[in-house]
Amino acid sequence: MTFSCLDQVLEFAEQSQDRFEADLAELLRIPSVSADPKFRNDIRKAADWLVEHFGKLGLKTELIQTAGHPIVYAESPPVPDAPVALVYGHYDVQPPDPLDLWISPPFEPTVRDGNLYARGATDDKGQMLTHVKSVESWLATGKQLPLQVKFLIEGEEEVGSEHLENFLSGNADKLACDCVVVSDTSQFARGVPAITYGLRGIAYYEIRLTGPNRDLHSGVFGGAVTNPVNALNRILAALIDETGRIQVPGFYDDVAPLSEQEQAEFRALPFDEAAFQRDLDVEGLTGESGFTTLERRWGRPSFDVNGIWGGYQGEGEKTVLPGKAAAKFSFRLVPDQDPDAITASLREMLQRLLPPGIRMELIESHRAPGIVFPLESVYLQAAAEAIEQGFGRRPVFIREGGSIPIVSTFARRLGADVLLLGWGQNDDNLHSPNEKFSLADFHRGIAASAALWDRLAAVCHE
Amino acid sequence: MTFSCLDQVLEFAEQSQDRFEADLAELLRIPSVSADPKFRNDIRKAADWLVEHFGKLGLKTELIQTAGHPIVYAESPPVPDAPVALVYGHYDVQPPDPLDLWISPPFEPTVRDGNLYARGATDDKGQMLTHVKSVESWLATGKQLPLQVKFLIEGEEEVGSEHLENFLSGNADKLACDCVVVSDTSQFARGVPAITYGLRGIAYYEIRLTGPNRDLHSGVFGGAVTNPVNALNRILAALIDETGRIQVPGFYDDVAPLSEQEQAEFRALPFDEAAFQRDLDVEGLTGESGFTTLERRWGRPSFDVNGIWGGYQGEGEKTVLPGKAAAKFSFRLVPDQDPDAITASLREMLQRLLPPGIRMELIESHRAPGIVFPLESVYLQAAAEAIEQGFGRRPVFIREGGSIPIVSTFARRLGADVLLLGWGQNDDNLHSPNEKFSLADFHRGIAASAALWDRLAAVCHE
Repeated sequence: MTFSCLDQVLEFAEQSQDRFEADLAELLRIPSVSADPKFRNDIRKAADWLVEHFGKLGLKTELIQTAGHPIVYAESPPVPDAPVALVYGHYDVQPPDPLDLWISPPFEPTVRDGNLYARGATDDKGQMLTHVKSVESWLATGKQLPLQVKFLIEGEEEVGSEHLENFLSGNADKLACDCVVVSDTSQFARGVPAITYGLRGIAYYEIRLTGPNRDLHSGVFGGAVTNPVNALNRILAALIDETGRIQVPGFYDDVAPLSEQEQAEFRALPFDEAAFQRDLDVEGLTGESGFTTLERRWGRPSFDVNGIWGGYQGEGEKTVLPGKAAAKFSFRLVPDQDPDAITASLREMLQRLLPPGIRMELIESHRAPGIVFPLESVYLQAAAEAIEQGFGRRPVFIREGGSIPIVSTFARRLGADVLLLGWGQNDDNLHSPNEKFSLADFHRGIAASAALWDRLAAVCHE
Repeated sequence: MTFSCLDQVLEFAEQSQDRFEADLAELLRIPSVSADPKFRNDIRKAADWLVEHFGKLGLKTELIQTAGHPIVYAESPPVPDAPVALVYGHYDVQPPDPLDLWISPPFEPTVRDGNLYARGATDDKGQMLTHVKSVESWLATGKQLPLQVKFLIEGEEEVGSEHLENFLSGNADKLACDCVVVSDTSQFARGVPAITYGLRGIAYYEIRLTGPNRDLHSGVFGGAVTNPVNALNRILAALIDETGRIQVPGFYDDVAPLSEQEQAEFRALPFDEAAFQRDLDVEGLTGESGFTTLERRWGRPSFDVNGIWGGYQGEGEKTVLPGKAAAKFSFRLVPDQDPDAITASLREMLQRLLPPGIRMELIESHRAPGIVFPLESVYLQAAAEAIEQGFGRRPVFIREGGSIPIVSTFARRLGADVLLLGWGQNDDNLHSPNEKFSLADFHRGIAASAALWDRLAAVCHE
């Protein structure tokens, strides 16, 4: 493997830009909306498109049926003594509603100002395709890839990847790899590419309180019968104090502190807190004291009520003492917090807070631990070099406050580091009308991906 | 005025029971639903029915147009040196929905087990009519009534009596009276007639909190951006402590304590707390410590959240940090709390509790002070004697936790004591399907009302 070989690859990619864009547009024209059964045929069409595409590249390709939408799997030949990379992506997209807010129709890809507008442009067809096109570029040189690349492209990411976990657990050998490559996130800012090396976990609950067996007149009963909405307010307020500190016993016991290196990396980022507030139209931020905004969002746990309801929500006034109240709430978790231990402690605390006359049901919903890949990982460092090659700038290392459950699943099931290499921009409108992907980022992503195969192969050869 | 005269009146009433029931049924057949414009003609029909009915009795009668539904006014001739009683009632009814839960149709009055089932049977056509029929019985003796009786029967009680206050303030002379008689409440229990001598007031609000200008991802922003639902929980929880004590500064400053006589009256009532809990299906009650359940419901202020909403309320989970949250809440007030002073103190407290990044809008809604008529009132005592005559048992003196805004309006505008003489039962299903009124209570109410004119007249003559 020589450096001039990568040059050849990159040159091919550059010369193929128009064709690569045309291929992406073709895939974007298929409305593969996973949430809506009426698009079932289009889901299948998108999967078939990929199978055909991988087949043309000469990859060993399979269409794998699940109880839901099919998984597309493809792999290049094994390369002895070289690592194995598994590319994960998804061909399904979010529903395009509300349609009337789209400037050009969601499934008619349209270029404006260097951006390609379409549902799925960035999430995830465009980003996913960069890795397909980088492999195509390598193979076009007439040589083998310097390492084995496996593709796992699913069709249920936007509806919870219900059948993927099962597939992973049943196919650990087939999917065995040294690192997983996922391009389904964003750069830190325009012109600032990033590698996301940590994600917060989540523990999501629904709490339902039942008081009297019917809605009561608040005049006749108020002050004597426990009001479940009053109780819910008290209970939820007790879970976190004024300084943003979560009050569940033992909650912070296993929280891994941010390293000095991480704190330094975060401080060095071009994060404009005033602009952040202006964008959200808020006059002030809050959160756990002693931490910066980025530290709070990425490296510290949090508590949010995601939804609450009870009693009368209509116009005017109704003097009701409601019979029921409920809320959805969640903790964001960081390494090494254990969602199960937290749930147990939470349940005990809630039971203790319950006033007389109120019954509680606590429904445990989604749970995933936080995850951090070590900054020293050779794969992370290889990816950083590849991004520098593709984007002309060394990436920053960031964490992400959200959870990408599949990432922890990969880490757990395959024992591999996951490289989150986001080519998108924060304003790409994913899940919103006018989703877009910068064509420049598309091509830079292809170049970075092409370089990634080179750098990852070098990891083993060094 | 002799006692034997009342005997004649009561005898006439007893002999006229069938006809009185037929008249009530006729009025109940008119679906005078005030909330729904499609019943506008029926509203008018019910008003006309009353006008005709009063006319037949020889009363001076008027149909008074308002910007809403008409008011029916009628009066007997003035009686020198005797007090004047004003009967207030309403001819409009609640909507009958849900229709499928009615055993017999709501506007086809049907007798089962001695109860007359129909929308409006107890609220308020049946109860109101007892006073019309008692006057009819008096006049049937061929003599004058021993005092002047004025009737004020409105058609908008179930929709907030919007145009009544105006009418009262513009007609204080016409309506001048010594006491107002209202039968629109219930007996304390089966066989335990009651006079309600006090009502709680109310101060009702809607609070709207706005955080970020859009719903945010709770993973990406949670822990740094103030969550308006979290803020709302904290704020509402801060308004009342665990022991049921309201925390608004100065809230209790003007609370008139319950007198020893009142406490003794309440303790003597046949109130079964275990049955009360069983009926509501709750295992335990709460409330301000140091007070009994009846004291809490009738004589102490309370705080209830009447409705709350924010964020995601659908199935499953949505990891949203909502941009908005809101709640409706109200205080029940007792004499001599001032709703305006409380609102001012509340507003200041809420402002102080508001965390950074949250804007608040507090909408002041309905407000009415609590009211208590002195137990020593000669009119109350006269009514007690009349009820003993009609029901064969001396009434208990109770208060009511709810607010009947019109009562304070009468007290304020006319400077008169208001006698709340409820002939209904607690399980008469007012505002619910299968509303009913015991025919025995209907006739006992007529007898009590007939005796009331006698006893009230005696007040002045004693």
